[in-house]
Parts: sequence; structure tokens; C-alpha cells
Amino acid sequence: MPRPSLRDQLLAAGLEVLHQKGYNATSVQDITDTAGAPKGSFYNHFESKEALALEALRLYVEKRKARREVLRDTKLPPLRRLRKYFEGLTQAAIDAGFSAGCLVGNFSAELSPQSTLIRKRVGEALLAWSEAIAVVIEEAQRAGAISADESPKALAAFVIDAWEGAMLRAKVVKDRAPLDRFLDVTFTRILA
Amino acid sequence: MPRPSLRDQLLAAGLEVLHQKGYNATSVQDITDTAGAPKGSFYNHFESKEALALEALRLYVEKRKARREVLRDTKLPPLRRLRKYFEGLTQAAIDAGFSAGCLVGNFSAELSPQSTLIRKRVGEALLAWSEAIAVVIEEAQRAGAISADESPKALAAFVIDAWEGAMLRAKVVKDRAPLDRFLDVTFTRILA
Repeated sequence: MPRPSLRDQLLAAGLEVLHQKGYNATSVQDITDTAGAPKGSFYNHFESKEALALEALRLYVEKRKARREVLRDTKLPPLRRLRKYFEGLTQAAIDAGFSAGCLVGNFSAELSPQSTLIRKRVGEALLAWSEAIAVVIEEAQRAGAISADESPKALAAFVIDAWEGAMLRAKVVKDRAPLDRFLDVTFTRILA
Repeated sequence: MPRPSLRDQLLAAGLEVLHQKGYNATSVQDITDTAGAPKGSFYNHFESKEALALEALRLYVEKRKARREVLRDTKLPPLRRLRKYFEGLTQAAIDAGFSAGCLVGNFSAELSPQSTLIRKRVGEALLAWSEAIAVVIEEAQRAGAISADESPKALAAFVIDAWEGAMLRAKVVKDRAPLDRFLDVTFTRILA
């Protein structure tokens, strides 16, 4: 396997530190230190911390998209796929500890007032995510597994927002309880 | 009316700037500039930016508690009180524009990894808030207006987390749609 380029190392380090500490609490030197790179090398590869943060967000969203494969596994009924998907996200959050939370949620809270570019990318990520969930909700409604009195898009967006809120509280209480509660209430009340 | 003390002016300015810009993007000078006070005066009144942020959080939570009065208005049936309460929060968010979001959510996202004190205060605020909602949900369940298959505390905490997630998305899309969707899905699916 080829050695990762210095740019890739800086990007991976940037994603890690930005996710753990947040944007404004992270200095360029925190990123180069984490990457084991000289501070001066940063600007050879990224125009600014904001430019790196945009790339880190893209990388994070790409990694998360891979988890959506289960949503297309038509061997399972749609509601079972949705449950498996959110159980997977819950387990990933538990494995990661709770201190970092969701990068999309963190950037929404911290950077919406500060960076129009990041705010827009976060908005696109939330929309695409909601739409991927809406497709499966619509299938479940057609199959009669979820009551069809509400649009799939509205239900999906609500569920994603509720997930982000549960991730926020899990970060605060450093415990899985908000995520377990999300699963429980979502699958007895919203997707039911 | 007596003139507000310099401490009160700094605190009000601090709450405003921290709410709009976030913690790490705000300097002590941003706060003294907003208060129209000399920079040097800050440390006569607050030990640190963190100390001011804790006071600002307390002030924000106190102001929000005043909105809970409607929850105790027993002239209205419990479900109507809950709806009126969240409609009031929605209107307040609309009136404030969407860029600031909820200070409790913002601090949850940005400061949980950085300040144990703020993380704990935010956790206490979320818990007290959920418990105030749970009391009314329990009443509504006893009155048969909300199905009783889930504990009032779990439903209340889920709803508060869903609200925080909706406020995050409203901040990103700068639009009331996520808040309207919160009201709609909450009162047709969760509190129903």
C-alpha cells in the first residue's frame, strides 16, 4: 500500500482534532502536531483552516454514507433496515465514546454563524441524509408497516433532527441512554 | 430604575455575543466592546471567560424558565398547554432570527469536550427542562390524551432532544420549517 501523502495525513489529523475539539478551539498547529508534520507544511496543502474543515466534513460525510448500504438491502423489510441502520449508528457512537458527538451537528452549532460555506455544506449533508431515510420510509409506508398519515420526507427529517439532538445530549451526559431512548421512541411512535 | 451595574452590562453583553458567535469565536474584547466598557474592566467582575459563560448560561436558563408558566396553567388541558408552550418557543426562535440557535444546544456541542463545569450545567438544564415537560405528559396520560405505553420522562427527554435537533437544523437552513415540522410530528406521533 502506498504511504499516505502529507496532504492525506493532514486531512486525517484535521478531521480527528476538529471532531474532538471543535473548530475554533483547534489551531493549525494542533493539526500539524497531530499529523507529526512541520507547522509550515500546512499552507502548502490547504489555503486555510476553513478549507481543511470543508474537506474534513466531506470525508466524514463520505464515511457515514458507507453505513447507508444496509438501507438498500432489500432482503430485509424496510422497517427492519431502518432499525438496523440506526442501531449501527448507535453502536458507532458508543464505540467512539461520546465526547466527540456528530461532526455535522457540531459544525451546525458552532460554524453556522461564522462560515457560509460550511453552513451550506452541512445543510446539503442533512438534506441528502434525510432523503436517503425518506426513500425507505416511503417503502415501509407502501408495505403498510408505517402509518402513511405523514409525508416520508417530513418523518425522515424529523427523525434525523431527533438523532442529532440525542447525539448532543449523549455528548453532555457521556452516556448511551439518549441514543437508546431515540431508538425506542422512534420505532414505537414515529416509524410505526 | 437604577442604572445596571457594569457587571450586569458585561453579563448581558456576554450572553448576547456568546449566543450569537459561540464561545471560542468570542474574545473578552468582543464582550467589553459590546458592553461599551474598557477591556481592563472585565477581570474586575469575572475571573475568566468561562466564569462569565457560566453566568450567561444561568441567565439564559432563568429567562427560558419563565416561559414554562403556561405549563402550569390548569385552566387548559395538559396537551393544549404543551402545544402552546412549544408554539411559544417556536415563535421566540422565529423572532430571534435563526442564526443564534439555542444557547444550551450550542454549548452542548461546542463546550462539552472543553469545560466540565459548563457540560455539567448544560446537563442539569436539559434534565430540569425534561422533567418540567414530563410532569405535564404524565397529566395528559392520566387524562387519556396521550397513550401511556411509554414513560413520561422518556417521552419528555426525547421531545426536548428532538427540539434541540430541530433548532440546529433551523440554524443551518435559516428557516422555520424544521420547527414547524417538530410541532407537527411531535403532536401527531409522540404526544398523541
